[in-house]
Amino acid sequence: MELEEWLLVLEKVRRERPLIHHITNTVVANITANITLAFGAAPVMAKAPEEVAEMVAQARALVLNIGTPSAPSREGMLCAGRAANKCGIPVVLDPVGVGATRFRTELVTELLAEVQFAVIRANASEMGYLAGRAVRPKGVDSEASGFGQAASEEQRSEIARAVARRFGTVAAVTGQRDFIAAPGRLARVDNGNELLTAVTGTGCMATAVIAAFTAVARDAFVSTAAALAAYGVAAELAAERAGGPGTFQAHLFDAAYSLTADQLRERARLTLL
Amino acid sequence: MELEEWLLVLEKVRRERPLIHHITNTVVANITANITLAFGAAPVMAKAPEEVAEMVAQARALVLNIGTPSAPSREGMLCAGRAANKCGIPVVLDPVGVGATRFRTELVTELLAEVQFAVIRANASEMGYLAGRAVRPKGVDSEASGFGQAASEEQRSEIARAVARRFGTVAAVTGQRDFIAAPGRLARVDNGNELLTAVTGTGCMATAVIAAFTAVARDAFVSTAAALAAYGVAAELAAERAGGPGTFQAHLFDAAYSLTADQLRERARLTLL
Amino acid sequence: MELEEWLLVLEKVRRERPLIHHITNTVVANITANITLAFGAAPVMAKAPEEVAEMVAQARALVLNIGTPSAPSREGMLCAGRAANKCGIPVVLDPVGVGATRFRTELVTELLAEVQFAVIRANASEMGYLAGRAVRPKGVDSEASGFGQAASEEQRSEIARAVARRFGTVAAVTGQRDFIAAPGRLARVDNGNELLTAVTGTGCMATAVIAAFTAVARDAFVSTAAALAAYGVAAELAAERAGGPGTFQAHLFDAAYSLTADQLRERARLTLL
Repeated sequence: MELEEWLLVLEKVRRERPLIHHITNTVVANITANITLAFGAAPVMAKAPEEVAEMVAQARALVLNIGTPSAPSREGMLCAGRAANKCGIPVVLDPVGVGATRFRTELVTELLAEVQFAVIRANASEMGYLAGRAVRPKGVDSEASGFGQAASEEQRSEIARAVARRFGTVAAVTGQRDFIAAPGRLARVDNGNELLTAVTGTGCMATAVIAAFTAVARDAFVSTAAALAAYGVAAELAAERAGGPGTFQAHLFDAAYSLTADQLRERARLTLL
Repeated sequence: MELEEWLLVLEKVRRERPLIHHITNTVVANITANITLAFGAAPVMAKAPEEVAEMVAQARALVLNIGTPSAPSREGMLCAGRAANKCGIPVVLDPVGVGATRFRTELVTELLAEVQFAVIRANASEMGYLAGRAVRPKGVDSEASGFGQAASEEQRSEIARAVARRFGTVAAVTGQRDFIAAPGRLARVDNGNELLTAVTGTGCMATAVIAAFTAVARDAFVSTAAALAAYGVAAELAAERAGGPGTFQAHLFDAAYSLTADQLRERARLTLL
Repeated sequence: MELEEWLLVLEKVRRERPLIHHITNTVVANITANITLAFGAAPVMAKAPEEVAEMVAQARALVLNIGTPSAPSREGMLCAGRAANKCGIPVVLDPVGVGATRFRTELVTELLAEVQFAVIRANASEMGYLAGRAVRPKGVDSEASGFGQAASEEQRSEIARAVARRFGTVAAVTGQRDFIAAPGRLARVDNGNELLTAVTGTGCMATAVIAAFTAVARDAFVSTAAALAAYGVAAELAAERAGGPGTFQAHLFDAAYSLTADQLRERARLTLL
């Protein structure tokens, strides 16, 4: 992975403006649509089983985020995931709170059995659960708490690799440092800011950015690392102007919108391991 | 339509503080409630078939926005729309993504058959579909993409007039320039800012403002044009203070909240055609 | 209630970072999660009947907000409320729009019959309805309208006391001045800012803050008063930096996040009556 290769992904998103279909939770629907737009892609939200397959067919990537699961959203996710696999567009999974309740765990298990995911993005406790190391997450923003912080860097990278191997996918464990694994490959991203833990849905937004980048890229490992670096740099730039989590969120969209290749080149801390 | 006539609508909204009932999509529920408040009206969100008719009876306008359609929301919209017609309050339709899936198209067709709308607000591709010129929209913010930009001004005004005629309603095609048509009447609004295309739900917010203005006005053609001019001027004022889409959204509510008759008189670019 | 006693509650929230389970309306899900985080607690949103009992068992407080009621959310609320009572964690009710429709009224009646609430937070018209003084609320933000403003201070405190007595709970009537009652006890909080009436969901956010504070406190009367004072002071600090409701909302999260004991001690206007 050449530096220039992933620097080009952002540019490609902006040029091609891919349509990204999101089935996501009600808490973050607005902000994940906005971060998608800010990075230059076009979001569409559709969840009804009656229409998701048709919408997927027009999109270039699909996000499945299980944050506020329900019986109807389960059905919509399964339909959309299968349709996306059939169309050959990448599907990105955000298994919010997997392991916290049987309902979420069964939903994720079913999705993983029925749908081939290009990328799974989660925090350390959720990803640890998928890797077969059951730990209870705490809240929807568990980046900021619980296992997320407790896990050592070694554990986090090991968890990412285990999930990548187990599901034949790209696995991104995000937190203070992000680890991105694909079978046989590993990268680390050291960008971001602590204020990301004080705003709800910042993990879900990372997933949305990954989907936007992966929609235009040939290599989901590269696009996921590129997305997390770009998102992390935008967060750093936003934090410089923020007085707290409320203004930080507003500036995050501003920074993503005007992020330049030079800013990325200068600030991105992406390491192949 | 005298200039002073539509200038007075904003004042009337603030004085009468009409209750506006919204049945809308989960992506924009928060921001459409906030833009309703910012312009001086009072929003209420209620979607359950069990209660919508009773809520409509207390409101002075109803918004039906099909952005994230589902079987239960379909039923709620039909109940509410019929009740609003019975009460004689104006109903405003936002046919988000009509033509993109059969489910949305059938829902809009059913709504148009069962409910008399005072106003329909959409972008060029959605309105083109309603006018019988099928084009596929791209994403929920298709103002910024696809047919929306491709359509010439002439096409856009023609589409507005065709929908106005076909459904006996006011039809507003929004985009870089807005065209407002009623049977035999046509107006153009040249206000707004490009940042509106970088924030999700700015079209849905325009629809909410139209509903607030139409609730207090005698003439839906006048109130729709007045709403789009006021909203566009607020967007221009917000853009002057914004560093990107995140701060733009915050300033948009500020600008709407403190918009004065003088600012409107000075900046509104409303032309009768 | 010593001044220092309630000053300590905020500190305790930040130290213990309690998990707060919210079942709330789609309009405010994002901002109530964010205000929970800003004050130092951890939000989790889960609504499906299939999982709420299991989620409640991991939480330290539960919020039931009926803002956009539906048949499935009714079931989830009942399950979660009963489970919370069984676990012995406090449940906080926000009866948005009770009295406005039969559906809401029946839902609230059922919840009050089946669940023991630690705190009920509402505006004067909603609380008046619960006290047996039926008045129709106007919109979801009726703080800014209708009975909310019309009720005299004496009426408001009387209503709070009536609900506290009737349901054996802490009852908080919020508005320009907040009245907090428990059987035999009454307090008043004079903090806040008019901009709270120009943003949707500011009442719902107050409820969320009460839940976060009550999760860590022994005395729900103290924690409710402390929460409303802290929230009101944050609103005052935010208003000093705001240019209107949009920037006010962003600054509200900033102010809550960085609120110090000194700021609270200096500005809180909490009176035992």
